[in-house]
Amino acid sequence: MQKNIAQGNLIPFVSVQQMVALIDSLGVEAFMTELAGYIEEDFKQWSLFDKSPRFASHSEVGVIELMPTSNGKAFSFKYVNGHPGNTRHGLQTVTAFGVLADVDTGYPVLLSEMTLLTALRTAATSALMAKYLAPEGADTMAMIGNGSQSEFQALAFKAMLGIRSLRLYDIEPAASRKLQRNLQDRGFDIVVCDSAQAAVEGARIITTCTADKRNATILTEQMVGSGVYINAIGGDCPGKTELDPLLLHRARVFVEYEPQTRIEGEIQQLAADFPVTEMWRVISGQADGRRAQDELLVFDGVGFAVEDFSALRYVYEKLSDNQGYDKLDMIADPDDPRDLFGMYLRLAPSRKGEAA
Amino acid sequence: MQKNIAQGNLIPFVSVQQMVALIDSLGVEAFMTELAGYIEEDFKQWSLFDKSPRFASHSEVGVIELMPTSNGKAFSFKYVNGHPGNTRHGLQTVTAFGVLADVDTGYPVLLSEMTLLTALRTAATSALMAKYLAPEGADTMAMIGNGSQSEFQALAFKAMLGIRSLRLYDIEPAASRKLQRNLQDRGFDIVVCDSAQAAVEGARIITTCTADKRNATILTEQMVGSGVYINAIGGDCPGKTELDPLLLHRARVFVEYEPQTRIEGEIQQLAADFPVTEMWRVISGQADGRRAQDELLVFDGVGFAVEDFSALRYVYEKLSDNQGYDKLDMIADPDDPRDLFGMYLRLAPSRKGEAA
Repeated sequence: MQKNIAQGNLIPFVSVQQMVALIDSLGVEAFMTELAGYIEEDFKQWSLFDKSPRFASHSEVGVIELMPTSNGKAFSFKYVNGHPGNTRHGLQTVTAFGVLADVDTGYPVLLSEMTLLTALRTAATSALMAKYLAPEGADTMAMIGNGSQSEFQALAFKAMLGIRSLRLYDIEPAASRKLQRNLQDRGFDIVVCDSAQAAVEGARIITTCTADKRNATILTEQMVGSGVYINAIGGDCPGKTELDPLLLHRARVFVEYEPQTRIEGEIQQLAADFPVTEMWRVISGQADGRRAQDELLVFDGVGFAVEDFSALRYVYEKLSDNQGYDKLDMIADPDDPRDLFGMYLRLAPSRKGEAA
Repeated sequence: MQKNIAQGNLIPFVSVQQMVALIDSLGVEAFMTELAGYIEEDFKQWSLFDKSPRFASHSEVGVIELMPTSNGKAFSFKYVNGHPGNTRHGLQTVTAFGVLADVDTGYPVLLSEMTLLTALRTAATSALMAKYLAPEGADTMAMIGNGSQSEFQALAFKAMLGIRSLRLYDIEPAASRKLQRNLQDRGFDIVVCDSAQAAVEGARIITTCTADKRNATILTEQMVGSGVYINAIGGDCPGKTELDPLLLHRARVFVEYEPQTRIEGEIQQLAADFPVTEMWRVISGQADGRRAQDELLVFDGVGFAVEDFSALRYVYEKLSDNQGYDKLDMIADPDDPRDLFGMYLRLAPSRKGEAA
């Protein structure tokens, strides 16, 4: 770790409000563009990363996951849950927080909210992959599924790919109206469509990100022409997919980390030997991205721990000394490590003033 | 989870100072006695727990571990590092913090320091096991290794077993003096000895807890008579043991969770089929603890995730409404879960006062 804003036992903490302020001060588009640079840098150093499967604790109503990784210098993990029924009780379906730590000392150096940060890193990852995979000159994106991730996707593709025209479709018209309203002063030309078929007309980039928790077919093989790039990020857990298998068979498919995507991604519908390309190979120049303008390419994105690592690393670097974060008294700091009890005695309210 | 002091997006956080205050208000001995009751309760419900191996990220200088578990109602994990070289830079060898979460919602309900809490749960666990395994009427304990865990062990054995006499030995005499000083007004009769051999004389309970990071022999077979209980807690990672294998062969050996102790405990020195008994079986009446007063019994303790779970559960129950903790704005809380970006716009400082 190059920087040290952590001071021994006091661990920097970035709250939701502080994350909002950090994003606001940098600008949403600049934040995601810079973050994409960090993700790109980490994907270029793919072999350094400890790529563990995520740890998942399942119950009847949801899942709690820990997603750890390390590049040998820093260690990170994200805590994230998924509870589809939570909205019935006024709670969020997904909440997340994460920790960055220094491998050399084992000390945590950052605790951060990650609900917002995950939305930003997901969109930054999508736009980064599109830089390598989208057809040249595409300026129109169809967005099928206009939920909580959609504004971030639109802004990342605007900032990094030059997308100016959006064609929206959601099974709930209110979601499209919400997206249109939230983006109204961001310089987009927005058309709300009444079907997925209508939305993809003339769009050379298609983002699918619906909330449907089953094997759905948002895009059929017939709906998509050649020379298109599909940013498929809504199929991200077992039993949840969005694309027609025939469409995948016609395309070249790109993934983050193959063992995880085989389980969680669109390709869970296909044979285990269906060929895919890991994006770190494209980003580091070891495999082709787009070979011709008329190819159909698919990024089957599920979200990987390295992206969370990059995001925490980016936020950590952006914090200025004593600004934009709190400090948590989270790590006991006895003067003599063999004398933890002595520390307790010195700090105990009932003992204050006594010689320990 | 029965209690709900967490308020949606605000997560209770217990700092080091707040943990000190909580321990101080309850009393160290009462805290450990009550905590032992929670551990006992959880060991009785052993089959409910998701018993995963800990996740470990190793480097040349140390290890960072995540220790998750769940009983189907609550989920917990502890972050803990081990960096022996840290003391050279004025840092702690081991730091820890942990999270308790509600399985039904996936929301974290408590973030807590766990350096102090781990010391307390380790001693509470030792004394709990001794209730089932120590010879009747033992009032003298030898303590070999007088480091940061020793005061907690002494006080837990005083509170739960009635130990009044301590016989101390440490390779560094300053450590024994520190232990003696810290316990001076706690009602013990303390003798500092100049060898392990001298310390164990007349003691029917022996606690070994040295810091030596190798396969050492703190107790040889010849040093220990019959009718003794050894609380062996210092051998807790691969390559770190304290007991003579011949001593283990003469004893009946008890463990927390056999698959983990085979790797980390004293029994790593023995064949994989050396018989051991898991303590949950003794605690729930399915296996014998002590059968006769003249038996030699060993608790080969390494620390298990369920004990951390019990400790977080205990602290959570002890927090009173709005007292003894802070509240962290750690979980994003949009009014409409599909409108995370709208929440961002409403909270963004540059947007304040605008209609979003």
